[in-house]
Amino acid sequence: MNVVESIERKRDGHALAAEEIRALIAGYTADAIPDYQMSALLMAILLRGLSADELAVWTDAMLHSGDVLDFSHIAAPKVDKHSTGGVGDKVSIPLVPMVAACGVAIPMISGRGLGHTGGTLDKLESIPGFRTALDPAEFTRLLERTGLVLAGQSETLVPADRRIYALRDVTGTVPSIPLIASSIMSKKLAEGLDALVLDVKVGSGAFMRDIVRARELARTMVGIGAAHGTAVTALITDMSQPLGRAVGNANEIAESLEVLRGGGPADLVEITHQLGVAMLLAGGVAPDPDAAQRMLHAAVASGNAFAKFEEVVIAQGGDPAVLHDPSLLPSAPEEAVVTAPRDGIVQRCDALLLGVAAVRLGAGRMTKEEAVDPGVGFIVCVKVGDVVSAGDPLIRIRWRHPGRLAEARSLVDHAIVLGDTAAFPPPLVHERVV
Amino acid sequence: MNVVESIERKRDGHALAAEEIRALIAGYTADAIPDYQMSALLMAILLRGLSADELAVWTDAMLHSGDVLDFSHIAAPKVDKHSTGGVGDKVSIPLVPMVAACGVAIPMISGRGLGHTGGTLDKLESIPGFRTALDPAEFTRLLERTGLVLAGQSETLVPADRRIYALRDVTGTVPSIPLIASSIMSKKLAEGLDALVLDVKVGSGAFMRDIVRARELARTMVGIGAAHGTAVTALITDMSQPLGRAVGNANEIAESLEVLRGGGPADLVEITHQLGVAMLLAGGVAPDPDAAQRMLHAAVASGNAFAKFEEVVIAQGGDPAVLHDPSLLPSAPEEAVVTAPRDGIVQRCDALLLGVAAVRLGAGRMTKEEAVDPGVGFIVCVKVGDVVSAGDPLIRIRWRHPGRLAEARSLVDHAIVLGDTAAFPPPLVHERVV
Repeated sequence: MNVVESIERKRDGHALAAEEIRALIAGYTADAIPDYQMSALLMAILLRGLSADELAVWTDAMLHSGDVLDFSHIAAPKVDKHSTGGVGDKVSIPLVPMVAACGVAIPMISGRGLGHTGGTLDKLESIPGFRTALDPAEFTRLLERTGLVLAGQSETLVPADRRIYALRDVTGTVPSIPLIASSIMSKKLAEGLDALVLDVKVGSGAFMRDIVRARELARTMVGIGAAHGTAVTALITDMSQPLGRAVGNANEIAESLEVLRGGGPADLVEITHQLGVAMLLAGGVAPDPDAAQRMLHAAVASGNAFAKFEEVVIAQGGDPAVLHDPSLLPSAPEEAVVTAPRDGIVQRCDALLLGVAAVRLGAGRMTKEEAVDPGVGFIVCVKVGDVVSAGDPLIRIRWRHPGRLAEARSLVDHAIVLGDTAAFPPPLVHERVV
Repeated sequence: MNVVESIERKRDGHALAAEEIRALIAGYTADAIPDYQMSALLMAILLRGLSADELAVWTDAMLHSGDVLDFSHIAAPKVDKHSTGGVGDKVSIPLVPMVAACGVAIPMISGRGLGHTGGTLDKLESIPGFRTALDPAEFTRLLERTGLVLAGQSETLVPADRRIYALRDVTGTVPSIPLIASSIMSKKLAEGLDALVLDVKVGSGAFMRDIVRARELARTMVGIGAAHGTAVTALITDMSQPLGRAVGNANEIAESLEVLRGGGPADLVEITHQLGVAMLLAGGVAPDPDAAQRMLHAAVASGNAFAKFEEVVIAQGGDPAVLHDPSLLPSAPEEAVVTAPRDGIVQRCDALLLGVAAVRLGAGRMTKEEAVDPGVGFIVCVKVGDVVSAGDPLIRIRWRHPGRLAEARSLVDHAIVLGDTAAFPPPLVHERVV
């Protein structure tokens, strides 16, 4: 194979052959193709695109660059959910125990927060003792036993993606829909799933800022699933303002526990249930959406969902005491309250600014090497459309370092915009792509 | 400076700022920017382009990445000529002694053959003893003394180009007009010239296959010259069939000597004189084209041009005996003759096929590391439009290894196409761009 000729073909807008794509991915993973050739190819792909056929092969080649999990010996349907990431997006944490309690097996492999979006692993690790680094044998054993496992990606799962992602990050080749879609789908399809539900976020706090790009990403991922023979459903959901009230790590666990107990903010509950319905339908354990909805409500009302989460926490080494008394979760010592400077109606509660502010505060990281402070974060007290009076709390900030508070506040002050006219938040679920 | 942001800006079709371009070139030359970032940027430039302003700065930054020659102490006008490369394109060799004999100083820095096009350095080195690796002091001394020096590029001249070119070669980013133009012009402008004449080849044996691309390249280079304050004239000349009759190295020296003696093939003589006129006018030593033409004829007729070449050969260590007896030049021992299989008119005499065939024979190289055999090559006996009879020689092949002869012949047999209708070669000079 001549790598330069492959780069040239893509550069000139032609399609790459299947064997060519497989050789490129395998060669790069094996260090036979240097970074400088792969980065030129990635830029050509970003600017020229990949056809559906090319993308199916590209994703399949990535997926087979390492171990592929096989849970065919587990009778329950294997379904996972993936979110493209947002601010306050803790949905997975209440969602998967609810769905697992209804008889779906969920081998969930999650990521860490990067940039302004949080990560499920960081949130889970604010539960003292919770281990997310599981070897394949333990992962399989836990899935067999509890029907739910929440872990980080092992080194041997889709190594091509880890390498290509790291290269994209430093070569301006991140925002390519085929490359984003193949990165997500290769990892999820390597989990040996029967079906997958995607939460494609759209809005200021999401990777996709507009519905056109979000729809394109959703359709692209659904197409990859179809080519692979895995049923994929995508919901395109709003991320113009944070989801729920909590933005941080430990405080998002506390809010997730509220949902598992039948409470929690309405938007978070709504999205969690809609994704849960999609998972139960995809797993074939509910005959229709109404039945699925009833099963989820029953799982919460019976305490089975909460019990399932407790089972997982114990199985993965976490301290179950915090589940029953969330005040035991890590919390920064200081609180600052941003109040409304005037009477008015909330026009905007910007997810991006609040996400960046949370990183400044220490709740997230800008580089992979940074540590996360589980105890800092925000409680966002208002939603777009809320009527507030001067002096009402808008945001409560849990902080540890005055310098970081100051950095965060300067952003927070711009995140919430008050006005005098009625304001309406966008719909929580924009579209469903199947 | 954030390199990723610069890549992203170019990727998205925006212009790079002057200081940004300078930092990118300097950073890459100093090993502060890795290959994988530069290759992504080069691919983005290839697909998005560079504006005239960006390109002027990009070229200037490359030009200043190393030594910049200064011959302002030499009173004579300093003019050089550069060809974009072709098959049988030995024009520089008879041209520059003719022009130098008319009072123009020529600090010519040439390249080696690569791919199907030959290189002036390889041809000159078929003169026994001729040294093309000169240090800057010797280069300057020879220019002062003889008004003409023919050398290879030193390590310290435009190091950014050497590195960027090597990277482009392996990342599919060669055929970008701004990158080609800046590569050529940075090297030529570093020679400290008053004026430059470009021979932009167009046709099957040229880098630019069509007149549109050739014109764009010519205009781009003339524009860079103008931005730099250096007068640049470009002729767009035909390279659909080889120039002259000789394709090789030593045989091209022999043909160049014919021109210096007042003979030689008509097409070669014509192009040489037209470029010579442009150089004399650019150097301000002739008042008009007719006068320039007369000066060139006089330089040949008087023997001054030949004497100038002999002076240079001696000054650079070459054996002057071969100039007087070209049979002393290296020559492969065997000759094969390709004859016309039928009566007919030459419809095509393909420069690309003959160029590739010459490489197969050993006259050129596909990688920089290969050695060149000075004694092998072709004499192309026909031009498009010639009437031939069955059995007439079409091409005489000087060869050394039977295997290489066989490889070359299979290409040569397809290079010349005979037909029954009249055929007309394209004009030798298509356009003039100033």
